[in-house]
Amino acid sequence: MKNYIKADEWNIIEEGFDPHLNKISESIFSLGNGRMGQRANFEETYTGETLLGNYVAGVYYPDKTRVGWWKNGYPEYFAKVLNAANWVGIEVKLDDEILDLATAQVTDFKRVLNMHTGVLERTFTATLKSGKTVKVKATRFCSIVDDEVGAIRYSITPLNFDGKITLMPFIDGDIKNQDSNYDEKFWTMVADEITGTEAYIKLRTKKTEFEVCTGSNIELYKNAEKVDIKVEAVRKEKFVGQSFSVDVKANEEITLVKIAANLSSENYPKESLLKETKAVIAKATAKGFDTLLKEQTEAWATKWEESDIIIEGDVSAQQAIRFNIFQLFQTYTGKDDRLNIGPKGFTGEKYGGSTYWDTEAYCVPFYLATAPQEVSKNLLVYRYKQLDKAIENATKLGFKDGAALYPMVTMNGEECHNEWEITFEEIHRNGAIAFAIYNYIRYTGDESYLSDFGLEVLIGITRFWKQRVNWSSNKQQYVMLGVTGPNEYENNVNNNWYTNLLATWCMKYTTEAAGIAKKQQPQKYNNLLKRLNFSDQEFADWADIIEKMYYPEDEERGIFLQQDGYLDKEQTLVKDLPASERPINQKWSWDRILRSPFIKQADVLQGLYFFEEDYDLETIRRNFDFYEPRTVHESSLSPCVHSILAAKLNDEARAYEFYLRTARLDLDDYNNDTEDGLHITSMAGTWMSVVEGFAGMRVRDGKLQFNPFLPEKWKSFSFTIGFRGATLKVNISENGINIKNNNDIALEIGIRNQLYKLEGNAELEIEESLKKEVGSPKSEV
Amino acid sequence: MKNYIKADEWNIIEEGFDPHLNKISESIFSLGNGRMGQRANFEETYTGETLLGNYVAGVYYPDKTRVGWWKNGYPEYFAKVLNAANWVGIEVKLDDEILDLATAQVTDFKRVLNMHTGVLERTFTATLKSGKTVKVKATRFCSIVDDEVGAIRYSITPLNFDGKITLMPFIDGDIKNQDSNYDEKFWTMVADEITGTEAYIKLRTKKTEFEVCTGSNIELYKNAEKVDIKVEAVRKEKFVGQSFSVDVKANEEITLVKIAANLSSENYPKESLLKETKAVIAKATAKGFDTLLKEQTEAWATKWEESDIIIEGDVSAQQAIRFNIFQLFQTYTGKDDRLNIGPKGFTGEKYGGSTYWDTEAYCVPFYLATAPQEVSKNLLVYRYKQLDKAIENATKLGFKDGAALYPMVTMNGEECHNEWEITFEEIHRNGAIAFAIYNYIRYTGDESYLSDFGLEVLIGITRFWKQRVNWSSNKQQYVMLGVTGPNEYENNVNNNWYTNLLATWCMKYTTEAAGIAKKQQPQKYNNLLKRLNFSDQEFADWADIIEKMYYPEDEERGIFLQQDGYLDKEQTLVKDLPASERPINQKWSWDRILRSPFIKQADVLQGLYFFEEDYDLETIRRNFDFYEPRTVHESSLSPCVHSILAAKLNDEARAYEFYLRTARLDLDDYNNDTEDGLHITSMAGTWMSVVEGFAGMRVRDGKLQFNPFLPEKWKSFSFTIGFRGATLKVNISENGINIKNNNDIALEIGIRNQLYKLEGNAELEIEESLKKEVGSPKSEV
Repeated sequence: MKNYIKADEWNIIEEGFDPHLNKISESIFSLGNGRMGQRANFEETYTGETLLGNYVAGVYYPDKTRVGWWKNGYPEYFAKVLNAANWVGIEVKLDDEILDLATAQVTDFKRVLNMHTGVLERTFTATLKSGKTVKVKATRFCSIVDDEVGAIRYSITPLNFDGKITLMPFIDGDIKNQDSNYDEKFWTMVADEITGTEAYIKLRTKKTEFEVCTGSNIELYKNAEKVDIKVEAVRKEKFVGQSFSVDVKANEEITLVKIAANLSSENYPKESLLKETKAVIAKATAKGFDTLLKEQTEAWATKWEESDIIIEGDVSAQQAIRFNIFQLFQTYTGKDDRLNIGPKGFTGEKYGGSTYWDTEAYCVPFYLATAPQEVSKNLLVYRYKQLDKAIENATKLGFKDGAALYPMVTMNGEECHNEWEITFEEIHRNGAIAFAIYNYIRYTGDESYLSDFGLEVLIGITRFWKQRVNWSSNKQQYVMLGVTGPNEYENNVNNNWYTNLLATWCMKYTTEAAGIAKKQQPQKYNNLLKRLNFSDQEFADWADIIEKMYYPEDEERGIFLQQDGYLDKEQTLVKDLPASERPINQKWSWDRILRSPFIKQADVLQGLYFFEEDYDLETIRRNFDFYEPRTVHESSLSPCVHSILAAKLNDEARAYEFYLRTARLDLDDYNNDTEDGLHITSMAGTWMSVVEGFAGMRVRDGKLQFNPFLPEKWKSFSFTIGFRGATLKVNISENGINIKNNNDIALEIGIRNQLYKLEGNAELEIEESLKKEVGSPKSEV
Repeated sequence: MKNYIKADEWNIIEEGFDPHLNKISESIFSLGNGRMGQRANFEETYTGETLLGNYVAGVYYPDKTRVGWWKNGYPEYFAKVLNAANWVGIEVKLDDEILDLATAQVTDFKRVLNMHTGVLERTFTATLKSGKTVKVKATRFCSIVDDEVGAIRYSITPLNFDGKITLMPFIDGDIKNQDSNYDEKFWTMVADEITGTEAYIKLRTKKTEFEVCTGSNIELYKNAEKVDIKVEAVRKEKFVGQSFSVDVKANEEITLVKIAANLSSENYPKESLLKETKAVIAKATAKGFDTLLKEQTEAWATKWEESDIIIEGDVSAQQAIRFNIFQLFQTYTGKDDRLNIGPKGFTGEKYGGSTYWDTEAYCVPFYLATAPQEVSKNLLVYRYKQLDKAIENATKLGFKDGAALYPMVTMNGEECHNEWEITFEEIHRNGAIAFAIYNYIRYTGDESYLSDFGLEVLIGITRFWKQRVNWSSNKQQYVMLGVTGPNEYENNVNNNWYTNLLATWCMKYTTEAAGIAKKQQPQKYNNLLKRLNFSDQEFADWADIIEKMYYPEDEERGIFLQQDGYLDKEQTLVKDLPASERPINQKWSWDRILRSPFIKQADVLQGLYFFEEDYDLETIRRNFDFYEPRTVHESSLSPCVHSILAAKLNDEARAYEFYLRTARLDLDDYNNDTEDGLHITSMAGTWMSVVEGFAGMRVRDGKLQFNPFLPEKWKSFSFTIGFRGATLKVNISENGINIKNNNDIALEIGIRNQLYKLEGNAELEIEESLKKEVGSPKSEV
């Protein structure tokens, strides 16, 4: 755990330059706009430790699978997040000396990421070996308005010399992926062009043949006056640069403005990619840096209006929650239904693929409440578009008749993972994808989604479950063998309670959804069923499974069993684990983890969270009390579920404690892995802890409900959510609950089991003392 | 399945040259002498498909582990069978044309491996592009008398031209392993020397720094007259050759004799390796090819006297059983307790490592009966010497206090495998190693082995089991979670019956062994226990586990359950599997295999085979009848156990059918994988089918017992075995059973439950009609 980021409500601040922290900071200070993004690599040369990272959404490389031992069914190739051309580069020479923070003496180093504006600023003073000292200020952003555009303003002031400064802004496509399986470079050169201040390079990925054109235009200013420059073109392997020199006097400032663009063949015909890039560059140049910056600032302000969480009385928590929201919006804007939310977003290449079940289970709830409905809908449509591949995937594994198994990790619908116990067996992901459809409709009321897209996906998924269970003549019940649940510290188990539950829930919900679609759009419904060769016998088969499914339970303890045989394990608790043996995923061999009772992440509890309405509070409590002490939370996706359930069980102290485990996960480099990139998807879990946990927000019968408490350390917290056309500002303070309706749609809102009418543009104030003594219980739900 | 090898009682014969079969033949015609060996690569240039393979026992390379996803506990490096310098090479040029069977027109091609003499002969006539035709005869062997020596006699006769033949015998160390993980070459050059007819090259392995010196001396004969030659030295990267030309007339024969040696730093100080190699070459040259050949022939004849199986009435079966015995003796001679029996012997590099539990479970019974006692003892001592590494291995996985887990695959005691479900969980291997100690003592009566070596190994193994089980407060019994049994088509299961049984058997046997050792050598015993920090409480702990161990059973069916939950599987049978879906390990995805009821290899039945005395025949029959129809035998180690049990259950037809599945596995390339090398260890299983199955041989209370039947197709079969100093020739014919005692030790022998006294150098004849009608049962045991 590190603690070097300065607390601030709106800014992420690093002061002083520590090369050992550089890769961590490169992740934390990452920029993105949903279309492209980059790690906070320096513009100027840096020969120290760095992880170069520039990413263009939707552009991937199918790397040849690497295994120790091949298992039938593994994908031969799988999609990797692709490191793309580096467009931020500006080589700086003071006379003939290269500016490089790895070799210079650096003072007054400061990095500030302004989350309110989406702008990264870096300032420092560097003294080179020769004794020459310069002050530098670099400002850059990825525009969320023109999401193919990025801009840099790079100012240099010599402090103790007159001389020649040579600049070479460049675009370098001769990069590689750190995680390349066979140490290959993934890009080939197509074309380049250097014309005056403009430079372009068009690269093509091997195998997939995506093309990306990266271009830039530069301007030079001396003491804020624009200066004409005459550049010398520099061409290297997949590299275009423009070199020029300026004579400067001490304390004169020269400023290079570099406006860049990344266009991909996913959005333009390949043959016009260069032309289109030139057009984008021309348009952005015409706007100029200041206008682009102003637009960026305004657009981010609007986003914050819809999604901010304000915490009073805890700057560190305030900074953390905003950082999480900010990174989520940098990663996914919902404009393009071919894109999704990678576990590292645009901040690293680790893990490959862009889509995990994280999207459905953790991110959808966040975007549902904080972004226009279209945004979460596009996340759902993404899966709809990949249904054919999911059916293909299931077929490869021996399923038939339209059964669909969505991949564990994917970019384009094809599987990107190869651990058999996960790839083939962690099939609960299929249930989370169905649940997200239910969740979307529950939140938005948009039932038309079923007829348009949802039902077809649900049928494919449910057909899979039907074939995946089998009749045990021994038990005279249906069972599901050989699965891995969300708790990946068990592999190939029989009857994972959560997975069995999801399977029958899918059968119930698909049946219900079919009824809705049939009523809404009978013709469309009939056409679909015909196209899918669907027979009513399938409903009957599902009903039989729903009726006769086996769920492992322990009646004596009144708990659901994570899987068959769980109680045969030695029942030690997490508190009995010596600190020196944690995290067990680093300290214990894999087999020891597997036969231990320790749970990586919420499993039975994940099911109780999804389907809480089906269980009474005592059942939830018994299961929580049993599983929580056995859970090591070695997945960043775990604590939020425990936090929400603890809140539901009135255990406020623990609800807050679980929240803390992930709130500053990356800012404090809690797991020593932030240098690989940020944990983007788990950031949504932090938001859920606050909104669903502390504020107790739910949707029941089409209405919002709240059942809040106020964490002891906080004076108040507020958040903004959109719900069925209304924008609500919810404030939880020591004095009670206040909800402002910021537009003219009237709503009914439940607070502590009581329904209130909230008129358009009105305000609802429930007075209640939420200031609590330590450990006092909140009122019963 | 192929069928191109000609049937012959003593020879393996290939007629006609088919390049598509070449890699298969290279495996089948492999030579070895326990110290070194090689695939049947051609001496002359061959540009067609070939898998080059020369191996030196005990010399390995620790290749960096390659995985898809790392699991804690995997070895970072592991030992691979190392392809070593190729010493058989002789480049042949007719004038300036290279002799290469890939481009020449080949007639009269014939390869004969004489198993009685251990000599490979190859003859062919080749017509080159120019029209020049030569006849070639190549004879070679790896001497089992001087096991560092190999010899080649290579004769060429031009048939239709007078001209110049240029020969370049060479040693090429610039080779690599086909299965190198990172495409590295593993050898570096140390020194070379070319002096007249002698050539030497000394190479060193990377990392392990083994050194191997390979040398050769050549002689040339023209029409059987020795001719002086003047060679030109040829040096390339890790390559020494000697080139010279001879003028020949049509129908004159020139013969190159190449005598080679391989010496390794495992047996000599590195600094004297070259000198020692010269000495070995000098000695072998002094003997000359003909003497070496004569010694080879005589030594093999002696081996056959101790181990032959003679089958009358079935040439194909006769050839097969001798091939299996021959290959086992080529692989392991028992002279060196640092060596073991690799699954591919000296016939291929696949699988890496040299030692699997195959050695203990399948090979030890073979060597016990067919070789001097020292040979199997050395196989046991091999494990004794690696006990420290086994303890280290267990410690790495979290065990303590001297618990030993032997690796799944090893060369020097370190683990060479990285599939977690096998490496960490297929722990029954530990039991097989203990069982081999028991089996050795049962067969030989050599109880002193316990005090000298065995008890220490047994204690380490038993300590492991003690820690590996846990108390289930749920069951109020001990359980063993997260294992993989011999049936690798189940992974990470709970309570594999076989493994649970082995664990408690080890506890019982180690307790018993301790009693024996204490009585025999009290001082040694006390010292050992003191050194091992052994407390008597350990016996008490074991006793408690023996008493309270849980074994999964199905009482209704009266069978032992392979593991918890086995009966929840869909109970389909192998006969219901469409042929198009077999073998399932090639046709089904891994998860589908895992949740299917299909069993890869004997598992419960393996346990009933090991411990048959503890179960009545009806119990064995019920389990056999249940499991056999569910077993796909996709391991070559499976059918022999089923064969032996079927024989025990008087199901002669099936006993013979199971025998057939592996008897000609490699000769007929049954599984399309013989080109990778031979299935050496499963060859011992074929021997077991004949001796323990058909002849029903057992050792009970220190006495040999037989309960034979005669396979319908056979007129008779005989085999030779050694038992406690006696050499017995057992003959089973249509007229009964005849046992000749070939030395003067008197024995008691059981036949069909009746004990007979067999005096020294006497004969026992039991008349009984063994000619059976189809399907008629043999007498009850």
